[in-house]
Amino acid sequence: MPVITLKGPRLSKEQKREIVRSFTETASRITNIAASAFIVYIDEMEPENIGVGGTVLADRDK
Amino acid sequence: MPVITLKGPRLSKEQKREIVRSFTETASRITNIAASAFIVYIDEMEPENIGVGGTVLADRDK
Amino acid sequence: MPVITLKGPRLSKEQKREIVRSFTETASRITNIAASAFIVYIDEMEPENIGVGGTVLADRDK
Amino acid sequence: MPVITLKGPRLSKEQKREIVRSFTETASRITNIAASAFIVYIDEMEPENIGVGGTVLADRDK
Amino acid sequence: MPVITLKGPRLSKEQKREIVRSFTETASRITNIAASAFIVYIDEMEPENIGVGGTVLADRDK
Amino acid sequence: MPVITLKGPRLSKEQKREIVRSFTETASRITNIAASAFIVYIDEMEPENIGVGGTVLADRDK
Repeated sequence: MPVITLKGPRLSKEQKREIVRSFTETASRITNIAASAFIVYIDEMEPENIGVGGTVLADRDK
Repeated sequence: MPVITLKGPRLSKEQKREIVRSFTETASRITNIAASAFIVYIDEMEPENIGVGGTVLADRDK
Repeated sequence: MPVITLKGPRLSKEQKREIVRSFTETASRITNIAASAFIVYIDEMEPENIGVGGTVLADRDK
Repeated sequence: MPVITLKGPRLSKEQKREIVRSFTETASRITNIAASAFIVYIDEMEPENIGVGGTVLADRDK
Repeated sequence: MPVITLKGPRLSKEQKREIVRSFTETASRITNIAASAFIVYIDEMEPENIGVGGTVLADRDK
Repeated sequence: MPVITLKGPRLSKEQKREIVRSFTETASRITNIAASAFIVYIDEMEPENIGVGGTVLADRDK
């Protein structure tokens, strides 16, 4: 029962549907585990809660 | 200092109290580690951010 | 489809069985979600990879 | 800089290559974020450290 | 490409900037990995979603 | 009771001691939470289990 987690920016409902469908199909095909066994979690993060290279994304986007 | 995380649906305050108390008591008894050392995190996820079997929960509930 | 993760010390197979059974029963009862939907992950950590209060556990145990 | 994590069974090196390549391509296309920005982590779990429906996988496989 | 995650209480924007800058500088210096390769995530938790010693933080603060 | 997790490459025991001490001191100072309340976890990943930009690190290092 594998779990796939995507931690990243805010996404639209359609993007979430595509991520869930594509990740599950891909991972099921490669691992030979039934698609029904996969769980996908989408963790949407605010730009002020992500740092890259020492700088908060909310500041870099300015 | 173990950490228990429950990633799942939205819960009421009373359900959270019970989860925290029960998980901590159970884990402390089984591992012989003092209950005071346990941290429990509850990650509440929106149905549009959870996918099962390739479908977003928000669509399955329809 | 909730996921419970216990991050802590090494455990015996019997302790793992009890953790998985107890956490699942407890969480299913409190949340009214079928036990079959729960996944439990046990992340066993080495004492040199856990720090508490600024000190690595492997050093505190000496 | 999104991070994708797959928590599941042991995989071959070729399966890992395919997972990393496919997840990155898929997520980059759907989110319009450059593929170079994606990190993928593969967390391989032992069957005795995964519980499904209250039972450790190592016992179910018997 | 290491990822540092801080799971804790709500923080101000200035505290987040300092956490991201300090963690990245410290980890880059100790590991000899370029600061540009580090990602920091800040997961802000509500007091009712954190349990310590079997009690929800929201109840302890009362 | 905040938890800091570093997910990255293998480190020496001395590097782990420094990471735990520095992260805890820094986070305690910035958040005004006692150092004794902080837990640090170090998740060491194999190069074949980390992908960057669609390529497994174990292949990039060749």
